[in-house]
Amino acid sequence: MLYAVIPAGGSGTRLWPLSRAGHPKFLHALTGTSATLLQATYARLGDLSTPATTLVVTGVAHAADVSRQLPELPTENIVVEPSPRDSCAAIGLAAALIARQEPDAVMGAFAADQLVRDVPAFQETLRQAMVGARSGLLMTIGITPTHPETGYGYVHLGEATGAGIVRRVAEFAEKPRLEVAKAYVESGEYLWNAGMFVWRVDVFLSELARQQPALHKGLTSIADAWDAPECEEVLGEVWPTLPKISVDYGVMEDAAAAGLVGTVPGDFGWNDIGDFHTLGDLLQCDKSGNVVMDDEDPTEHRDKKVLTYDTERVVIVPRSGRLVAAVGVSDIVVVDTPDALLICGRDRAQDVKKIVEQLKERGEIDLI
Amino acid sequence: MLYAVIPAGGSGTRLWPLSRAGHPKFLHALTGTSATLLQATYARLGDLSTPATTLVVTGVAHAADVSRQLPELPTENIVVEPSPRDSCAAIGLAAALIARQEPDAVMGAFAADQLVRDVPAFQETLRQAMVGARSGLLMTIGITPTHPETGYGYVHLGEATGAGIVRRVAEFAEKPRLEVAKAYVESGEYLWNAGMFVWRVDVFLSELARQQPALHKGLTSIADAWDAPECEEVLGEVWPTLPKISVDYGVMEDAAAAGLVGTVPGDFGWNDIGDFHTLGDLLQCDKSGNVVMDDEDPTEHRDKKVLTYDTERVVIVPRSGRLVAAVGVSDIVVVDTPDALLICGRDRAQDVKKIVEQLKERGEIDLI
Repeated sequence: MLYAVIPAGGSGTRLWPLSRAGHPKFLHALTGTSATLLQATYARLGDLSTPATTLVVTGVAHAADVSRQLPELPTENIVVEPSPRDSCAAIGLAAALIARQEPDAVMGAFAADQLVRDVPAFQETLRQAMVGARSGLLMTIGITPTHPETGYGYVHLGEATGAGIVRRVAEFAEKPRLEVAKAYVESGEYLWNAGMFVWRVDVFLSELARQQPALHKGLTSIADAWDAPECEEVLGEVWPTLPKISVDYGVMEDAAAAGLVGTVPGDFGWNDIGDFHTLGDLLQCDKSGNVVMDDEDPTEHRDKKVLTYDTERVVIVPRSGRLVAAVGVSDIVVVDTPDALLICGRDRAQDVKKIVEQLKERGEIDLI
Repeated sequence: MLYAVIPAGGSGTRLWPLSRAGHPKFLHALTGTSATLLQATYARLGDLSTPATTLVVTGVAHAADVSRQLPELPTENIVVEPSPRDSCAAIGLAAALIARQEPDAVMGAFAADQLVRDVPAFQETLRQAMVGARSGLLMTIGITPTHPETGYGYVHLGEATGAGIVRRVAEFAEKPRLEVAKAYVESGEYLWNAGMFVWRVDVFLSELARQQPALHKGLTSIADAWDAPECEEVLGEVWPTLPKISVDYGVMEDAAAAGLVGTVPGDFGWNDIGDFHTLGDLLQCDKSGNVVMDDEDPTEHRDKKVLTYDTERVVIVPRSGRLVAAVGVSDIVVVDTPDALLICGRDRAQDVKKIVEQLKERGEIDLI
């Protein structure tokens, strides 16, 4: 049995104005189905996990929504961080909580805002990763690259381990320049780093104690007090003191150098829905390459909302009920919401966060 | 004294969704001032005319708005066409009505949707045109071209007439191809045809009788009945039978061939506000070439409504109260209204009318 941990945080500023701090992307159905990204992340674990062995770690702003979207989850499995302390704290707390019940449990961490198209293939890869995890490796699921993407980090494959198809990870590589990415893909020795982890909680906590002793100590004291009456006081006191670091930098990089990290190649139509350009590539387009990201009800008529004339490769997100008309434009993103409109070049979709930053500076919190 | 006639018709489909059939462009303040185009057209006549000698010819849908926007105009000077029958009928009716009061009055016709930047220069040109009109010529005010525009018709200058600076018009030339337009401008012998006419009503009506006898007869019968109790019956019966033709084709072209048309060159910052691209060129832009067409109150803060990042030469019309954010786009038009949004390439601004046509076909009358 797998303990599944779903970190559900981050406001997805590159998907503004659709994704907002108060309604971040994982709470949305972005992929043309009725399930939200969070619900899809939970559902795709199938019978590898159970509601009782699934934890969602989320922020104070989203706990109520998470609770409604996953009604089968026991409420005590919705772990609410008092404030964002990055992924090492979030995942580490989940590991410490699981260890109280089953010290050598196998746990997997799956971000709530990723897309997987081939769920059976995903589950098969996950099973292979669990083999590596049981053998004592900190497993990261690698994705067989389909193109020289510069927006993802990579894992450099090391030697075989003998545990099924598990390979050791020689090292993690930062987001590369295009030429480097091309060389990675051609070599066949690199996978995309999807940020999906599988490990025994005892192995992970021991590495955490070695590399991040302050974080380990704080999380242990919180986990020890978890069921006690003073839990909220301990959490409120200790949590804000925890080091803010990602699990990649905080644990995985050095663990790889120590030969403790393994990987299996996944080939299940994975996508990290980072921005509208990527999202547009995922969805069904018309013969001119235009994508309309309709409301959650797929039975509504698109052509009531969108009219195009000589328009190509445009991503339109009509979410205000108004007609969106496009004439003689191409390769842009149009996101129409009730209180904000975004027009953005598709190749500039990463820069949407700049607008969010400007709004933050101006104190226009209601628009963020 | 000049009898001023202002034809105020046409829905301005190239300015959709700002300009609507129910609220066409001449009722809007489009040029960064508080006056609407109609009000500006009226005001720029200054003391060359009076409220008593100004007629607005408009359609049934706009009569009430015209009446409110020009409160000093006697209501009987707001002439309402039962249906659109093109400019020859509209201007001809006004001429016939003026002739009842003063058969050799000098009348000028000025479309309600044009822009004039230098009003004193306009008035001076108008005075020169009135000299030609009194001498018996059908005058068209020409505009000294500032560039080889392909969107306007041209007038080809003929010989001097002896009446001030008035030149005869050798012929009217259709909208030219670019090379032809360049040759026109270089020759110095062509002016833009602004569609502003000045003539004695007796001269015009006599040419109308010669070239368009049916139209002349119908208009005469309407004018004869104008103050009679049966006026509305006569108008309702005769008007729909009138030939639909523009005054340019219906009268001016053949009149020019007969040597009856004169012109004076105008150099007063004239612009025919045809589409958003043209309009964008008229307005003050920021250092990136972006133009924000704000609401009619110029004291409102633009940056509350529009945020741009790496955006150039974009025309933004924020009229829904929402934030408009643009990232990494250039040379487009964004028109944001409460029920429709338009995104359009600036070089495709003429094609906005295609959207209006599609909406018409679909019967979405409320959006037109």
